[in-house]
Amino acid sequence: MPATLASDLARYLDDNDRRFHDELFDFLRIPSVSARSEYDADMQRAAKWVSDNLRTAGLDTEILSTPGHPVVLGEWRKAPAGALTVLIYGHYDVQPAEPLELWTSPPFEPAMRNGRIYARGSVDDKGQLFAHMKALEAHLGARGRLPVNIIVLAEGEEEVGSDNLEAFVTKHAKRLACDYIVISDSSMFAPGLPSILSSLRGLAYFQIDLEGPAGDLHSGSYGGAVVNPAMALARILATFFDANGHIAIPGFYDKVREWDPKIRAQIKALPFDEANFKKEVGVSVLGGEAGYSTLERLWSRPTCEVNGLLSGYTAEGSKTVLPSKAMAKVSCRLVADQNPAEIERLVREHITRVAPAGVKVTIQMLHGGQPWSAELQGPLYDAAKRALNAAFGRDPVVIGEGGSIPVVSDFQRLLGAPVLLVGFGLPGENAHAPDEWFADENFTKGMRAMASLWDEIAAGARA
Amino acid sequence: MPATLASDLARYLDDNDRRFHDELFDFLRIPSVSARSEYDADMQRAAKWVSDNLRTAGLDTEILSTPGHPVVLGEWRKAPAGALTVLIYGHYDVQPAEPLELWTSPPFEPAMRNGRIYARGSVDDKGQLFAHMKALEAHLGARGRLPVNIIVLAEGEEEVGSDNLEAFVTKHAKRLACDYIVISDSSMFAPGLPSILSSLRGLAYFQIDLEGPAGDLHSGSYGGAVVNPAMALARILATFFDANGHIAIPGFYDKVREWDPKIRAQIKALPFDEANFKKEVGVSVLGGEAGYSTLERLWSRPTCEVNGLLSGYTAEGSKTVLPSKAMAKVSCRLVADQNPAEIERLVREHITRVAPAGVKVTIQMLHGGQPWSAELQGPLYDAAKRALNAAFGRDPVVIGEGGSIPVVSDFQRLLGAPVLLVGFGLPGENAHAPDEWFADENFTKGMRAMASLWDEIAAGARA
Repeated sequence: MPATLASDLARYLDDNDRRFHDELFDFLRIPSVSARSEYDADMQRAAKWVSDNLRTAGLDTEILSTPGHPVVLGEWRKAPAGALTVLIYGHYDVQPAEPLELWTSPPFEPAMRNGRIYARGSVDDKGQLFAHMKALEAHLGARGRLPVNIIVLAEGEEEVGSDNLEAFVTKHAKRLACDYIVISDSSMFAPGLPSILSSLRGLAYFQIDLEGPAGDLHSGSYGGAVVNPAMALARILATFFDANGHIAIPGFYDKVREWDPKIRAQIKALPFDEANFKKEVGVSVLGGEAGYSTLERLWSRPTCEVNGLLSGYTAEGSKTVLPSKAMAKVSCRLVADQNPAEIERLVREHITRVAPAGVKVTIQMLHGGQPWSAELQGPLYDAAKRALNAAFGRDPVVIGEGGSIPVVSDFQRLLGAPVLLVGFGLPGENAHAPDEWFADENFTKGMRAMASLWDEIAAGARA
Repeated sequence: MPATLASDLARYLDDNDRRFHDELFDFLRIPSVSARSEYDADMQRAAKWVSDNLRTAGLDTEILSTPGHPVVLGEWRKAPAGALTVLIYGHYDVQPAEPLELWTSPPFEPAMRNGRIYARGSVDDKGQLFAHMKALEAHLGARGRLPVNIIVLAEGEEEVGSDNLEAFVTKHAKRLACDYIVISDSSMFAPGLPSILSSLRGLAYFQIDLEGPAGDLHSGSYGGAVVNPAMALARILATFFDANGHIAIPGFYDKVREWDPKIRAQIKALPFDEANFKKEVGVSVLGGEAGYSTLERLWSRPTCEVNGLLSGYTAEGSKTVLPSKAMAKVSCRLVADQNPAEIERLVREHITRVAPAGVKVTIQMLHGGQPWSAELQGPLYDAAKRALNAAFGRDPVVIGEGGSIPVVSDFQRLLGAPVLLVGFGLPGENAHAPDEWFADENFTKGMRAMASLWDEIAAGARA
């Protein structure tokens, strides 16, 4: 059933489209690079810009300091009694723009070319955060009110790991209490295909160190009688997989929730261009777990990747050394309902079981993150589906994401509310690269979808 | 049957012992470091010293230039018609002495302490070469003649790879034609145990490069669907061995000549202190091929060692990268009758067979060397046995060597004569380290053994 955006909101967005573009360009001109202290004043300026813009739209705002860059809170809590409360999360910081010479136009001088807004931060995430801000303004400007209570939380440290966010949310959990969380910091599967993110993979990142002889040995004088840590490491790593690309660490898949056959069918129906994917990666043959498609391998299945290897002599030419040490960095991407701590235990047990005598093995877990998977039913999902249909003229597709966004499961866990991940970027948008862009069509439709979302959520709650 | 050194030779060696020590100390004072051009004049001086000393003893000498450091030839060809010709090989160059601060006495100021001659080059190889020179002088001084024709070839580039020796021997093959080759540039198994070296291992050194994706990828966004070159490398390397430590490359052992059970029994009887070996290596458990002792693993069996590993991110902390490339350096030590070229073919075939699709594998052979194994019977061996018995009061033991000395098989191949490797160093002699030493007892007994050897060889030829 086709949905439509309320005509008053549509008109407000149309009438103010030029100004919204001007404001977005102003926002993009602020070089809010969180990674470099020389931009600290710009970070403050960007936070104030967001706060001022939200206040002008009619929200109460506050800039709260953290041990790092500040968090901007915008609040509107005048919805009728019994109305739902929604928290919108976004970030006003951006990646460094270097290498500058690879930009067609300067990263902090936004430029419109071929229907794309080029600038650092255009899609990640200033443009998407700003689309939310303008959707809120449309309600308040056209009607003087919103059908739900709103909390906007814009942080300034997403590109440097969101180190202070968990503590911030924990500290302000009461104030941030909400029914739903909405985040637009991701991409659509393809142009014209509005997309709801169904999952993020978690992470369990290990460093494995093997120590053999006390020092490097001459491989002639000692080779054959001393356990070689580099070969032992290779043999340990090889036990992580069976011949079909399944991970062979006992218990590894025990908690993996198989995807709903309906979702698998939807993923199968996505217009995925495998030839183009291969070209992008630069390989002629893909690989992975037998029995799963490429998208399933990326989204629905856990992995075990070697991220780094180091042992012995690695410079030019030959040196006949039997190395004293060998090191691997190995990380597992996890899917629901796997748990990093449990995977750590399984990996430790497995390595202990297969490691040969004659080497000392040390395993450190360097980093862990929970996997996340969305509720793909219920009123929030239904409302999002109708809102995206209203803006894009078709129902959204459900997609996964192979990477990890730790704040998503943090929010869900700390605030006890489901998260909707709906993004308006596109493949090839250069989010962390030179010539980052945001499709102007998606900026416009994103504002409309989000403006529609608040009506649809309120309607869903009434139904 | 106990053998004895002829009394005239014994007396000459006794009478001149003080002078021989003085001369050796003079020789050791010349810093003939072949690796550093600042010592080039000292290299010339050392070559002239050897030439002069041989001429004084009664040999004809010549210093022949090479593209590198010169070769000294000493010749005595006045043995009766039908007498054998023996070539003695040694080297007058030494390793650099650094780090100087770790020497108890300066490296080029020889010092006698606790029955040891401390100096750079004392055992490797000036002291051993000089013992040969004095054994020749004993014959010529006591009797005015030798029972065999002699060619002394002293090179100045052994410590820098003997790069010009093969061409030199090829060029002068006629002049260097001989029946036997004798080299003293190795060690005895233990004090009091004269030792004949039965084998040297050869080498086939490879670099294996795997290329996967065109660039490093995000392990979240791509992990699970793209073949990981580092994991592929680990899995390839793991196929090199079976669970018993046997090399699992098909055909690898086909040409391996099993050692004579008599030699295996002799090796088993050697006073090998495995606890001490472990302590020296710094491990509590040794490893290797099932069914062989530590000494057999080191001497009689081929190996396959990883010398180096490099892939992806190897610095501190975690980086979620799916590496574009992975590299391993792998070298096989070979035993008779394995051949580096054939091993190269087998390794290439094996890797091609086991490498997964999705990575490009490049294999370079960086270095190859033939294994060598001695004739442990026949007149040369019998003569050496008797000569060593005469000097040390007991029959020699047969030992192997896990490392490679490429010139040995070069000599054997180019001159078509068997090589006798009989050395007088000792374990712990610091051949390439500070505080290099040569046991004075072995210097003395080495001169006696070599003086006896020429009589025994001549007696063997007459028998």
